[in-house]
Amino acid sequence: MRTSFENKTATEDIKSLRLITAIKTPYLPDGRFDLEAYDDLVSMQIAYGAEAVIVGGTTGEGQLMSWDEHIMLIGHTVNYFGGSVKVIGNTGSNSTREAIHATEQGFAVGMHAALHINPYYGKTSLEGMVSHFESVLSMGPTIIYNVPSRTGQDIPPRAIRTLTQSANLAGVKECVGNDRVKHYTENGIVVWSGNDDECHDARWSHGATGVMSVTSNVVPGLMRKLMFGGKNPSLHAKLMPLIEWLFHEPNPIGLNTALAQLGVIRPVFRLPYVPLPLAKRVEFVNLVKEIGRENFVGEKDVRVLDDDDFILVGRY
Amino acid sequence: MRTSFENKTATEDIKSLRLITAIKTPYLPDGRFDLEAYDDLVSMQIAYGAEAVIVGGTTGEGQLMSWDEHIMLIGHTVNYFGGSVKVIGNTGSNSTREAIHATEQGFAVGMHAALHINPYYGKTSLEGMVSHFESVLSMGPTIIYNVPSRTGQDIPPRAIRTLTQSANLAGVKECVGNDRVKHYTENGIVVWSGNDDECHDARWSHGATGVMSVTSNVVPGLMRKLMFGGKNPSLHAKLMPLIEWLFHEPNPIGLNTALAQLGVIRPVFRLPYVPLPLAKRVEFVNLVKEIGRENFVGEKDVRVLDDDDFILVGRY
Amino acid sequence: MRTSFENKTATEDIKSLRLITAIKTPYLPDGRFDLEAYDDLVSMQIAYGAEAVIVGGTTGEGQLMSWDEHIMLIGHTVNYFGGSVKVIGNTGSNSTREAIHATEQGFAVGMHAALHINPYYGKTSLEGMVSHFESVLSMGPTIIYNVPSRTGQDIPPRAIRTLTQSANLAGVKECVGNDRVKHYTENGIVVWSGNDDECHDARWSHGATGVMSVTSNVVPGLMRKLMFGGKNPSLHAKLMPLIEWLFHEPNPIGLNTALAQLGVIRPVFRLPYVPLPLAKRVEFVNLVKEIGRENFVGEKDVRVLDDDDFILVGRY
Amino acid sequence: MRTSFENKTATEDIKSLRLITAIKTPYLPDGRFDLEAYDDLVSMQIAYGAEAVIVGGTTGEGQLMSWDEHIMLIGHTVNYFGGSVKVIGNTGSNSTREAIHATEQGFAVGMHAALHINPYYGKTSLEGMVSHFESVLSMGPTIIYNVPSRTGQDIPPRAIRTLTQSANLAGVKECVGNDRVKHYTENGIVVWSGNDDECHDARWSHGATGVMSVTSNVVPGLMRKLMFGGKNPSLHAKLMPLIEWLFHEPNPIGLNTALAQLGVIRPVFRLPYVPLPLAKRVEFVNLVKEIGRENFVGEKDVRVLDDDDFILVGRY
Repeated sequence: MRTSFENKTATEDIKSLRLITAIKTPYLPDGRFDLEAYDDLVSMQIAYGAEAVIVGGTTGEGQLMSWDEHIMLIGHTVNYFGGSVKVIGNTGSNSTREAIHATEQGFAVGMHAALHINPYYGKTSLEGMVSHFESVLSMGPTIIYNVPSRTGQDIPPRAIRTLTQSANLAGVKECVGNDRVKHYTENGIVVWSGNDDECHDARWSHGATGVMSVTSNVVPGLMRKLMFGGKNPSLHAKLMPLIEWLFHEPNPIGLNTALAQLGVIRPVFRLPYVPLPLAKRVEFVNLVKEIGRENFVGEKDVRVLDDDDFILVGRY
Repeated sequence: MRTSFENKTATEDIKSLRLITAIKTPYLPDGRFDLEAYDDLVSMQIAYGAEAVIVGGTTGEGQLMSWDEHIMLIGHTVNYFGGSVKVIGNTGSNSTREAIHATEQGFAVGMHAALHINPYYGKTSLEGMVSHFESVLSMGPTIIYNVPSRTGQDIPPRAIRTLTQSANLAGVKECVGNDRVKHYTENGIVVWSGNDDECHDARWSHGATGVMSVTSNVVPGLMRKLMFGGKNPSLHAKLMPLIEWLFHEPNPIGLNTALAQLGVIRPVFRLPYVPLPLAKRVEFVNLVKEIGRENFVGEKDVRVLDDDDFILVGRY
Repeated sequence: MRTSFENKTATEDIKSLRLITAIKTPYLPDGRFDLEAYDDLVSMQIAYGAEAVIVGGTTGEGQLMSWDEHIMLIGHTVNYFGGSVKVIGNTGSNSTREAIHATEQGFAVGMHAALHINPYYGKTSLEGMVSHFESVLSMGPTIIYNVPSRTGQDIPPRAIRTLTQSANLAGVKECVGNDRVKHYTENGIVVWSGNDDECHDARWSHGATGVMSVTSNVVPGLMRKLMFGGKNPSLHAKLMPLIEWLFHEPNPIGLNTALAQLGVIRPVFRLPYVPLPLAKRVEFVNLVKEIGRENFVGEKDVRVLDDDDFILVGRY
Repeated sequence: MRTSFENKTATEDIKSLRLITAIKTPYLPDGRFDLEAYDDLVSMQIAYGAEAVIVGGTTGEGQLMSWDEHIMLIGHTVNYFGGSVKVIGNTGSNSTREAIHATEQGFAVGMHAALHINPYYGKTSLEGMVSHFESVLSMGPTIIYNVPSRTGQDIPPRAIRTLTQSANLAGVKECVGNDRVKHYTENGIVVWSGNDDECHDARWSHGATGVMSVTSNVVPGLMRKLMFGGKNPSLHAKLMPLIEWLFHEPNPIGLNTALAQLGVIRPVFRLPYVPLPLAKRVEFVNLVKEIGRENFVGEKDVRVLDDDDFILVGRY
């Protein structure tokens, strides 16, 4: 689409974001979005100091959305919260066609930046990977997301170097580790850590701008402090058991379980995600007590949910 | 979707809208939306005093959009212009499922009101028609659209009477004629004329609140005057040849041809629409001269386009 | 799509079909297709002598299907019954893009012919209408469907005349009346009556090839006799009360109600269709007794269903 | 969907298939399917002795298809070739909803078996993975596909063991290696090698039933011999350079390049795939000469294509 770029967000404004939450998408019992709960989640992020949200990321289960749901959620977030928080739409796909279409639509409904993954599962050559990203880079501020443990294929630094020719490249969400983070920051490329367990060191020892966080869904204030308050090994140490708990199974299984037990979402899972088992659910309640309920989102008592409390939906 | 209704537009704010433009959707040569041209069209509507736009109405060719395009366009319009103009999404369908889904999505991306048609083509019983509307009325401010010449089935006043039980019913866009308009206004039901040729009398003699206009796409300032400036038979008479020209073939064939010749959109038609023939195109240029180029949108000279200037697209 | 035409059905084979049933689509309680019931319905049509089925016509509620459901149903019917019955896919649309896409897909999954409607609701000029049909005519054997009471626009004989230049035009399903039927047959154009009440005269007095029937869903054997057994005014008279009952409300409301009471489908309606009221449901049982249960499809006793027996679905 | 299972393929008939080709999907210059070329490719597979094709696998670029294209291609293949070759639809997805919907539709249009992948990219817990597969297993004969290098997550033998409780489980397409193959065959579980370079040993030394092959797209007769003709290390050795060439970059990049140079498909790539570079294209021509043109599909001379010969499409 030919579109007016007057309203375009400056890439520089994206580059300086420090705490970005990969926001959870909550569901109704029939599997549709629970927008009221979603709005509450986003409001809490804003209240606790998150500067941006990623809509429909892997944490937000974009991979389980139809594209119309996905774009709707981006547009909704922009409309209701776009003045208070930057909205980064995960409009990436392993299909270049889908990435092009979704990214056009995402910017059309006002998202401030796009998050783009390399073609997972299908994979491609280095040249194909670069062509894929170049197909969408011209549309607006863009963050490239590298997570080989999910995609099966690393985005090598030489691919990123090629993409820096575009003024729209805001930076990289990097999950490979802090050596890679350091490599980028030493070369003037903006990086966000994509690993909550490494983000403290990434930020304070390796030059990362900040984090794209899962953990901030549950303890946004503490993650804010971790990213803004200077080197803080004791806070990092305090959070590590929670982070390890959250990533015990592939994300967002832990997060979904946690938010349900905190009473801020209904205990509804879209398959193939299923809740953590009872023993882990008990562990979470203990973690909340140790860290302090007041540091977690929501105001209800945290509780251990029973197996029967959860609703798993395959058709929605 | 469960959604927060804090941001909901008050139905009363919809009821008072007087000049509502059923906005044209312009296209690129490959048939995708030309959002830059669209933004210009909407901006001109705002500048000339339109208070609302209908997005993806029959004039905007909602029937030729995929739903994701349609919802994207609603979200886009809300994001870029929602502070200056009310955005009414045509989220109606002859399929109740589609109407439900689109209306949920339209309100989620911030539209201020929904326009709903009765089930055209498939048709249904009176009871089915009422059930159809009741499936979407709870979602937000709603306007019912009656145009039997398109749908093959009149929405009788007794159906509307039943629907007035919902506080969300803002009113009726009525194309059956001014007797029907009068019937509704005498019974306290808000009506907009859906016929440009009748809207002057509807407004000033039969109690209509205003018009949902096609003609205002090309002469928004004159339509504003017609709806706000008091009874004005000479202005009405002056506009009638233009209105007749616009509706010589099923709308939006005339409108599309006119806007292309005014230079405000590219001469691209999505099939099954094709431009008016050359003789009619010449007529339009003469009409512009008679009414005054300054009253029409755009700043380029109006010109007669050749057959070869037009691009017709079937795949897009 | 470029496709091999070796397997293409000859247009001549379509032209000679006399009894074509616009087959009902039955549903499960959650609104998805009940393919087991569907397969039974098609099997009964074959057993009683129908030569073709229209899949996803207005009777089959194509207007309430997503396109992927629709094409799947065409493919399914071809796969399971294509050797015993001709499969005519209603791949028409008021959007030329959709008609092109669906028709390509329909022929790709093996349908023998396409049924095409003119652009209802959106409507267009005569030239636009012809362009619309020409966009799909090259793909395979095609029947044009004229039903102004649904579309709001007649397909005039001069449009059909233009389309006869294509060897793929099999003929016209005409609902305007027997004068129009006669006009076509006198001009060598194949016609099927689209009105059950007129089809006897259309066939035996005005040269129609046969009928595209709703009524044959319930009494296929009698409709076979009406179309094959020579002039038969008494059979016609015997059927008229049933036909009038079926069309008391817009089709397929009566048909859906009837098939549910005959026990051959579950009493599930996709909105905006709702069952006929109790009084009419009682009437149907009496009609079955008068005409003879043995002439109707199914083997269960016909019974009067209660309001509570019906399931109406809006989301599916 | 409730469906009649009379026509269901016996799982036993799937278990005995030895040469299964993951068939390439060819494109027209605008990116749509080239069904004529596709039909030729399938015909050649049948002529050379392939017993089944996987439609829309990773080789067939199912990940770049919309689901309606994908199901249409399955239905098409069943209709035109289902009597001569088994049609295995890759109706897997990382979204359980999509897997359910596609698998229902695939069986409805007549596919003989489904191929199911574990949730790649999004990943899930072991329990979630099993739930995912159980959501589709009841629908018909099923093959589970394990390829951690693409999915980022191994399907462990204990997951497969759980799934063997379903009579529909035909077996496993295993890419982890021949130790895993051996483990399964020793435990009575049918396995196909998913790696062309290992399939000879898998078949003749480790009990694999056969192969799901990429290489058989280009040399179906030789792959037939490799799977049916007994242990044949010299043939295996002869094929290894071709196999290594095909997998030099992520499949199907090599295959697409090869088939284009063999003249059996147009040189059209859907992004993110791009052709192999010139040096590799020259290598292929030499490989053809060494192995013998007569062993490859097609009848045109193999030739080195220029960069300009290729068409890369991002929108289609």
